[in-house]
Amino acid sequence: MDIEKANEQAVERMMQSRPVVVGMGKALEVIPGMQEDLLLHAGPPITWERASGPMRGAITGALIFEGKAKDESSAKKLVESGAIKLEPCHHHQAVGPMAGVICPSMSVYILENKTHGNKSYSNLNEGYGKVLRYGAYSPEVLDRLRWMEEVMAPVLGKAITLSGGIDMRALLSESLHMGDEGHNRNKAGSIIFTTRLAPFITRAAPNSETAAEIIQNLADNALSVLNPVMAACKGMVDAAHGIEGSTIVSVMARNGTDFGIRVSGLGDRWFTAPVAVPQGLYFPGFTAEDSSGDIGDSTITETAGIGGFAMASAPAIVTFVSGTPRDAMNATLEMYEICSSEHKYFTIPPLDFRGTPTGIDIRKVVETGITPRVNTGIAHKDAGVGQVGAGLVRPPMEMFQNALVAFAEEYGY
Amino acid sequence: MDIEKANEQAVERMMQSRPVVVGMGKALEVIPGMQEDLLLHAGPPITWERASGPMRGAITGALIFEGKAKDESSAKKLVESGAIKLEPCHHHQAVGPMAGVICPSMSVYILENKTHGNKSYSNLNEGYGKVLRYGAYSPEVLDRLRWMEEVMAPVLGKAITLSGGIDMRALLSESLHMGDEGHNRNKAGSIIFTTRLAPFITRAAPNSETAAEIIQNLADNALSVLNPVMAACKGMVDAAHGIEGSTIVSVMARNGTDFGIRVSGLGDRWFTAPVAVPQGLYFPGFTAEDSSGDIGDSTITETAGIGGFAMASAPAIVTFVSGTPRDAMNATLEMYEICSSEHKYFTIPPLDFRGTPTGIDIRKVVETGITPRVNTGIAHKDAGVGQVGAGLVRPPMEMFQNALVAFAEEYGY
Repeated sequence: MDIEKANEQAVERMMQSRPVVVGMGKALEVIPGMQEDLLLHAGPPITWERASGPMRGAITGALIFEGKAKDESSAKKLVESGAIKLEPCHHHQAVGPMAGVICPSMSVYILENKTHGNKSYSNLNEGYGKVLRYGAYSPEVLDRLRWMEEVMAPVLGKAITLSGGIDMRALLSESLHMGDEGHNRNKAGSIIFTTRLAPFITRAAPNSETAAEIIQNLADNALSVLNPVMAACKGMVDAAHGIEGSTIVSVMARNGTDFGIRVSGLGDRWFTAPVAVPQGLYFPGFTAEDSSGDIGDSTITETAGIGGFAMASAPAIVTFVSGTPRDAMNATLEMYEICSSEHKYFTIPPLDFRGTPTGIDIRKVVETGITPRVNTGIAHKDAGVGQVGAGLVRPPMEMFQNALVAFAEEYGY
Repeated sequence: MDIEKANEQAVERMMQSRPVVVGMGKALEVIPGMQEDLLLHAGPPITWERASGPMRGAITGALIFEGKAKDESSAKKLVESGAIKLEPCHHHQAVGPMAGVICPSMSVYILENKTHGNKSYSNLNEGYGKVLRYGAYSPEVLDRLRWMEEVMAPVLGKAITLSGGIDMRALLSESLHMGDEGHNRNKAGSIIFTTRLAPFITRAAPNSETAAEIIQNLADNALSVLNPVMAACKGMVDAAHGIEGSTIVSVMARNGTDFGIRVSGLGDRWFTAPVAVPQGLYFPGFTAEDSSGDIGDSTITETAGIGGFAMASAPAIVTFVSGTPRDAMNATLEMYEICSSEHKYFTIPPLDFRGTPTGIDIRKVVETGITPRVNTGIAHKDAGVGQVGAGLVRPPMEMFQNALVAFAEEYGY
């Protein structure tokens, strides 16, 4: 068996993927295997007992949103009794940023990979600060979610259909030339997304005031495109998964307690290890003391060759995550050491349009001792608070070592 | 007299300027000194006889638009007889890209410099290719101008008022962190401008279809913000003009035949010399043989410290103007040699957020032998054709030498 060939095939399938946002629907109706009594969450599997503060907060908020709980203690009872089940987004072709909780009546973007046919899903982005995905669930958080669900989602769904779909690979290619890296800096991508949809939102909305409010919401949120970007990356890496003999990482995800990876040639098993705490810049009034462990499915961006791997494209991001533009350049250069390829469609102008480092090879990670670089938001450690900063983190080496051992066992090396 | 102090004052006034798009109005009604029988044009003064092909084409198109001529020969008669007068935009607080022709019934953006109170003006951008500003005047060009005038401008004017105004210095600060340089690459700035106005266009338009079409027009045109950017730069440099003893350049502009500059401490006189031909990349089917001489008021961007001077912010621009990202970096580094200051609000992430080179000092240009770098579009040399490419050009040294001699005479050195 030829590992190089298998990896080439996996990464080629990843890069040739062209995920397009084709519509929007209720999670219960469109996500495969979604159920009335199920909540999806970020990262590998987790229980209430082991869940971090922000994960518990988001589960609580989602159950209040569903009308099934009224506070954290009633949410806890529902989950611990088994009346409400928890499963990773990744078990359902979905991804969610930070806590990544998707509940049955939430609307989600539907993406179709036009190259390989697979679908992927993510929910709507709520903006910065006190938001469900960071574990906040105060009345203002719930009110915003209800507005998004009742007013925004139906119009957005119609607008996407009218637009004929938004090609996310093309959008990312463009935004990487406009100072984004696609994970923590999505300023350009979000306004490209907004301008592409705005004419159709205008046509789809019941009246001009509603159209104006929805456009304003997308335009003011520099992360409005993050969730479709993540779903696009999920569509890309899913197409690279399940290649016999491949050592390419096809999932990296964190639930706030454990980091987990999956490997293309190793089926659906997770390799997990305890998460680290991100290093970065904190919002006024918060310090590293307040920080939760690393959390979210957004590492799917790095898995697909953008985010921390494309930081050389986004020197201005250092104002948000700390460091200097030189550090941002070095982050990308370092990632070439552990990747099997350079992206055909995602290129970096300051590096003479070199393709982003793409396709993390667990062999290279273990050989070089270099773990992937990840850009991330930082959640407060307690349920109910929200985002407190943004920064950088690396996944634990242990997972890659265990995966390599498993690979050797599986394939008899 | 202390030249350094005078220059410091001039550049400080330029940088502290905060031009805001506050509204829109018919040129005849809002531009100071505009008259029914007057056309404004780019660059220093010009006659029909000496005018380049694209300038003649744009004059012809404007007179057809005004209903005063039916073709180039009747336009020529009107201008040569004196029935229609030509004056530079710069004599009326205005600027226009390429031929820069503004006619009485054309709508223009109105900008107010919130720091110093001066106003400035520019017309609406038509997009790429076959457009009036490049000297094209076919029925499709005129139809687009009429749609812009009758449908787009009234809605845009109301939307600007409803928005409370668009702060162009803030917009430029942001777009320079998103891969723009503000002259030839305005992709980010144009979609920022579009997203800021879109909610208000939705509210101002007579119906949703019209709103959708106007938003689409702004969003699809990667130069839609160029004209407000140029008017913003005009507002900034006008505030730096007229400082006793200053050797700072306050205008650079070309009419396709002559390049002209003005100097802050030398009043309203122009120093002119024949234009060069830009070097760059041509659209399919065109070559350097087709190129007109350098044309347009858009060099006001370089005069204000952006455009070619900020190319280090915009490595991806080389796909459009030729060269490598390293050349783009070097262009900015070279311009520090001839500028008196570094901008306080326009910063360059890849240069560790160093301010852009700002305030061209004619003494430094002459001493170093380095002329300013300019990014520009390239017009076809014949009337009626349009844009054929984009590239780089430098103004003739002669103007700076003559200005320095005049400065010595004026101030008795």
